[in-house]
Amino acid sequence: MSATLYQQQREHIAALNLAYQECLAAHQLDSLAIYSGHARNHFADDHATSFQSYGHFIHWVGMADVQHSWLVIQPNQRPQLYLYAPADFWHLPTQLPEEPWVAEFDVHLCSDKITPPLSGRAAIIGDVIGLESAEQLAKAATLHPDALVRELDELRMVKSAYEITCLREANRLAVAGHQAANAAFIGAAAELDIQLAYLGASRQRESEVPYQNIIGLNQHAGVLHYQRYDLSAPKQRYSLLVDAGRRFRGYCADITRTYAGPDAPGEFGDLITAMHGLKDALIAHIGPGVEFLSLHEQMHRSLADILVAHGIYEGSAESAVEEGITRAFCPHGLGHSLGIQVHDVAGLMHPDGTPSPAPKTHPALRLTRTLRPGMVVTIEPGLYFIPMLLAPLRNKALPINWGLVDTLAVCGGIRIEDNILVTENGADNLTQ
Amino acid sequence: MSATLYQQQREHIAALNLAYQECLAAHQLDSLAIYSGHARNHFADDHATSFQSYGHFIHWVGMADVQHSWLVIQPNQRPQLYLYAPADFWHLPTQLPEEPWVAEFDVHLCSDKITPPLSGRAAIIGDVIGLESAEQLAKAATLHPDALVRELDELRMVKSAYEITCLREANRLAVAGHQAANAAFIGAAAELDIQLAYLGASRQRESEVPYQNIIGLNQHAGVLHYQRYDLSAPKQRYSLLVDAGRRFRGYCADITRTYAGPDAPGEFGDLITAMHGLKDALIAHIGPGVEFLSLHEQMHRSLADILVAHGIYEGSAESAVEEGITRAFCPHGLGHSLGIQVHDVAGLMHPDGTPSPAPKTHPALRLTRTLRPGMVVTIEPGLYFIPMLLAPLRNKALPINWGLVDTLAVCGGIRIEDNILVTENGADNLTQ
Repeated sequence: MSATLYQQQREHIAALNLAYQECLAAHQLDSLAIYSGHARNHFADDHATSFQSYGHFIHWVGMADVQHSWLVIQPNQRPQLYLYAPADFWHLPTQLPEEPWVAEFDVHLCSDKITPPLSGRAAIIGDVIGLESAEQLAKAATLHPDALVRELDELRMVKSAYEITCLREANRLAVAGHQAANAAFIGAAAELDIQLAYLGASRQRESEVPYQNIIGLNQHAGVLHYQRYDLSAPKQRYSLLVDAGRRFRGYCADITRTYAGPDAPGEFGDLITAMHGLKDALIAHIGPGVEFLSLHEQMHRSLADILVAHGIYEGSAESAVEEGITRAFCPHGLGHSLGIQVHDVAGLMHPDGTPSPAPKTHPALRLTRTLRPGMVVTIEPGLYFIPMLLAPLRNKALPINWGLVDTLAVCGGIRIEDNILVTENGADNLTQ
Repeated sequence: MSATLYQQQREHIAALNLAYQECLAAHQLDSLAIYSGHARNHFADDHATSFQSYGHFIHWVGMADVQHSWLVIQPNQRPQLYLYAPADFWHLPTQLPEEPWVAEFDVHLCSDKITPPLSGRAAIIGDVIGLESAEQLAKAATLHPDALVRELDELRMVKSAYEITCLREANRLAVAGHQAANAAFIGAAAELDIQLAYLGASRQRESEVPYQNIIGLNQHAGVLHYQRYDLSAPKQRYSLLVDAGRRFRGYCADITRTYAGPDAPGEFGDLITAMHGLKDALIAHIGPGVEFLSLHEQMHRSLADILVAHGIYEGSAESAVEEGITRAFCPHGLGHSLGIQVHDVAGLMHPDGTPSPAPKTHPALRLTRTLRPGMVVTIEPGLYFIPMLLAPLRNKALPINWGLVDTLAVCGGIRIEDNILVTENGADNLTQ
């Protein structure tokens, strides 16, 4: 790891400490304990589900797999890290890496699961439900106070130099996975094997991915959160959609690519090219002061142009937007904030913490913010042939070329997604 | 799938219904609802953890990924299956396979999350905590009554012909994974790539495995529940331990193999051979009426013989057992019951439901039952060089050849594990 990254991380932690100090003062708190969380077992079983540490804990320590540990922040003190590290021959003990950031903390190795030391007015955030000490903690501190959590969420919206470096590296690793997935698709692999090729090339296991990868062949590309991996490849190979990420020191990449297979109708490849162009045009509009909602609306106008240009919609582009045609072809939002969580916090509130929900006409939009330098967002326009959404349109006398739609339906759909840093002058595409 | 399996499954369900009818009568119940369970999100995130359906739900329907669904059993009625299958373009809808067993149920497809219809004296089992209807359910029925659950657990101890077929097939698929893992090890692969090779050859994804596979190179083979996959291969390759399974229609395989690498000391390969022999000798002792604890004790006696024969312990085999030496070299139990869960239920109780805990001298033993035909158990003797367990012995004047122990310590340890069906006359090894 480079010296730059280490230096950036120390600065990130120092700045975070200052920002937390302000929060503590504003809320008149003498201590704030952040719980890492811990894995739960499957019901009536002795094996645990997959786990990731609490986002605000990762924000400080950059490790997404720490359990049963606490971070205590107090006014004018160094952060105290209570790391659970029992002497246990059954498991590999938790260890802190030998990296400079560790020196920013007072580290306490705990052989038992502890109750964090709190003094004065105290608050606790994190998943403490079910802890043996939950009742005791509730007496000693306010649990998960909403207003405070919203302020801490807001601290994650604009990324530090360290966080940007991490997001860029996560992208680099994920891109290697996408290249391997495409190669496996060319080799006629099944969805499971495309997924395993992705994991191998991006150097990660399934339980570490920031979200479950979507690997959809043919019509599965049109299931927005397609959640299975078929064990055998279909005979006809029309399309592949891969929406897959990577964590790096807790920070997420979230990239989507769509490929035309050997059996795809020619129009499908043309549409993929057009959607890449749409994605790039939207990125060119990004900059400080831009409303993300206006970019989302721009996507719909450009999607209408594509539907008209490719003969799918034989009316005017304006009417395609006005009559909700484009929403039937793309029911999801243009993108979301990206960071420690793939759908990162604070996307649907104003900077002061008051709610800023998605508009009723675009209920699936996950980001309604005005862009600022340091924000990192996904730009992921889509164009799908989803039977459940198109069926209601068939009964109306609309100028839709249903023959072409039905020809393309075997391909499922298209999504192209990059991760974009908002800069002082415009945008920096982290997905290259 | 073969006609035999389908026929066996219908007979399995019919027999299960009869057994449940007896339970309902004994507990004077008019209805019993079994909840499938559902996945929870990671804390403060919108992505779900891994999930498996509740064991007693799988016992009936043979599917381990069903969520938000209910099974209602009532006296003298066909079982009622309420399957959650919403119209949802975001996800692939849940579907029942087109298989004969479905005809054993009255199937109700539910577009909403339902509250199961209950009548008279009712009980509910499953993970209903956090359901919106939890309070309502608690008024209508007894939640998770202990005595009833123990009786249902006991129904899972002796396997039906259908279940044995499933366990055998799970073994066949897992063996293909083990062969691929060994090939990857010969090819100098890293732990992550050995894991991916295993998953590819056994045709499954990580979130479907019955327990997280243990893929340990070198000293990692001595971490009993080693839970990571290193991204790069070590320069010196002494050993590989693979403890990895597979589900088939909900039923688990659980197989372990250990391999000597090109850099292993010669004694290590000899010890692996000896441990295979020990495993086979123990299996030869299996039959109806045998106490599993006595087999476990036999393992320790034979392990002592191996320590003596290979010059690790230079005293008598008897003293190695009596002084607890063998327990420092093998701290875990000989095996456990195997079925819908990898550490299957009812292993530590008597057939009547009263507790039968592990003895204090062997606290990690997971099975204290008298073997009966139809039980399926793992036989997994081990021999490890675990620094934390050996350290206390170094201070004593024991005839241990520490030079040899230290030579072997780089290999971590050995475990060999097969899955065994108890038959009328002896044993049937499902791992071939």
